[in-house]
Amino acid sequence: MRNLKVIISYNGAAYHGWQRQHNRITVQETIEEKMGIILNCPVTVNGCSRTDAGVHAKEFCFNAKIDNSISCDGLKKAMNSLLPKDIAVLSCCDADESFHARYDSKGKEYMYLVNNGRDRDVFMADTSFFYPFRLDEERLDNTSKLFIGEHDFAAFCKAEAKEHLKSTVRTITDFRVIREGDYVKFFVRGNGFLHNMVRILVGTLIYVNEGKRNEKDIIRSLEKGEREIAGKTISPSGLYLNKVFY
Amino acid sequence: MRNLKVIISYNGAAYHGWQRQHNRITVQETIEEKMGIILNCPVTVNGCSRTDAGVHAKEFCFNAKIDNSISCDGLKKAMNSLLPKDIAVLSCCDADESFHARYDSKGKEYMYLVNNGRDRDVFMADTSFFYPFRLDEERLDNTSKLFIGEHDFAAFCKAEAKEHLKSTVRTITDFRVIREGDYVKFFVRGNGFLHNMVRILVGTLIYVNEGKRNEKDIIRSLEKGEREIAGKTISPSGLYLNKVFY
Repeated sequence: MRNLKVIISYNGAAYHGWQRQHNRITVQETIEEKMGIILNCPVTVNGCSRTDAGVHAKEFCFNAKIDNSISCDGLKKAMNSLLPKDIAVLSCCDADESFHARYDSKGKEYMYLVNNGRDRDVFMADTSFFYPFRLDEERLDNTSKLFIGEHDFAAFCKAEAKEHLKSTVRTITDFRVIREGDYVKFFVRGNGFLHNMVRILVGTLIYVNEGKRNEKDIIRSLEKGEREIAGKTISPSGLYLNKVFY
Repeated sequence: MRNLKVIISYNGAAYHGWQRQHNRITVQETIEEKMGIILNCPVTVNGCSRTDAGVHAKEFCFNAKIDNSISCDGLKKAMNSLLPKDIAVLSCCDADESFHARYDSKGKEYMYLVNNGRDRDVFMADTSFFYPFRLDEERLDNTSKLFIGEHDFAAFCKAEAKEHLKSTVRTITDFRVIREGDYVKFFVRGNGFLHNMVRILVGTLIYVNEGKRNEKDIIRSLEKGEREIAGKTISPSGLYLNKVFY
């Protein structure tokens, strides 16, 4: 048995997230179907993360155990010729037999992309969030540092998801907010993320920009763990899984 | 009667071009429908150009005669709230009653965008052309200058379209090919363009890159006007109407 480590990129606009579901098209199912055609047998892949419906990935990793001598480059090319145009294989290599894309991940970086111009960008409608009210990226960059460190992020987790978790403590190692022209980018790195966590973190910073929350509320939200103190869950369209670290 | 000059931008991936057609969704029809709802009467608009199916516009101009006192800013906002996310109104103003978006145009600039990286870009699948074989942008930039000037572009026109034309002579005022990282951009300006002209011009330059045509063939194609001497018509997905000049 070989264990392949595959890096892909996908535009999530047309998918109901990564994870296989009944009656919904997902990235995992699309990948497994095409790999199954190439290898002529059923294939199951382990993704590094479960991205939500509409969320994108610049670098998403999965591993797959296969019993086939196809070359990595040959598999990459075959996959790219069969996959729809919104999913691409970037690399494929043989990994140690114990490698698992999810359990071995040491951390991830997400990017949230906001079109902060006056006009909608028709070329980025599904791949950014349009927010025409001026964002103060310097203030938000400073405020974002409050999230860095090991904290209980219970206030930044989808309510239903919390019940199944042993702990809502996670460590954020870096948070940056930068402007590039009309676009504002929120970069956040951490050892793990709760369901909807990045979207609530960014939604809370937008609330700070609007004066609906302030720095004290953020400190309080991390202390109290109450979902109501944090901001709302922002649209998935601006969220990208940027990188997975091993 | 007022005569409005409206600038829009659209991602053409989901549309069968600009011009209204039976049983196909076009940008013109979408615009006329939404304006009709806002103004509560049928509206006909005159576009500056007829873009093909799948072609995009960064700045497309149309004019519309309306009998309504709505403010330009109010109309822009109402349009942007009703229009689908792949069409946006960038500006709207009152123009002279004689203004016609097509007949008054003094020229246009098109941009053709090629992803010349090794990998497909899933975020640009519908808005660029993927061509992974290395383009020599310096040579193509030099070669593109051969098209500048007044020429008979009969060899660079869709065959069926030629029959309806009085003349296939057009003037190209500028042609540039530049690289930005993995992307190569072809910019072409002229006083008017034949059907498929930009796509055949770029397709011919790609043939030059591949050694299937050379500089002498280009000179000959302009002299002889034979479609076969020029290269093939490249995909619409990379083509953008960049600007219209008045």
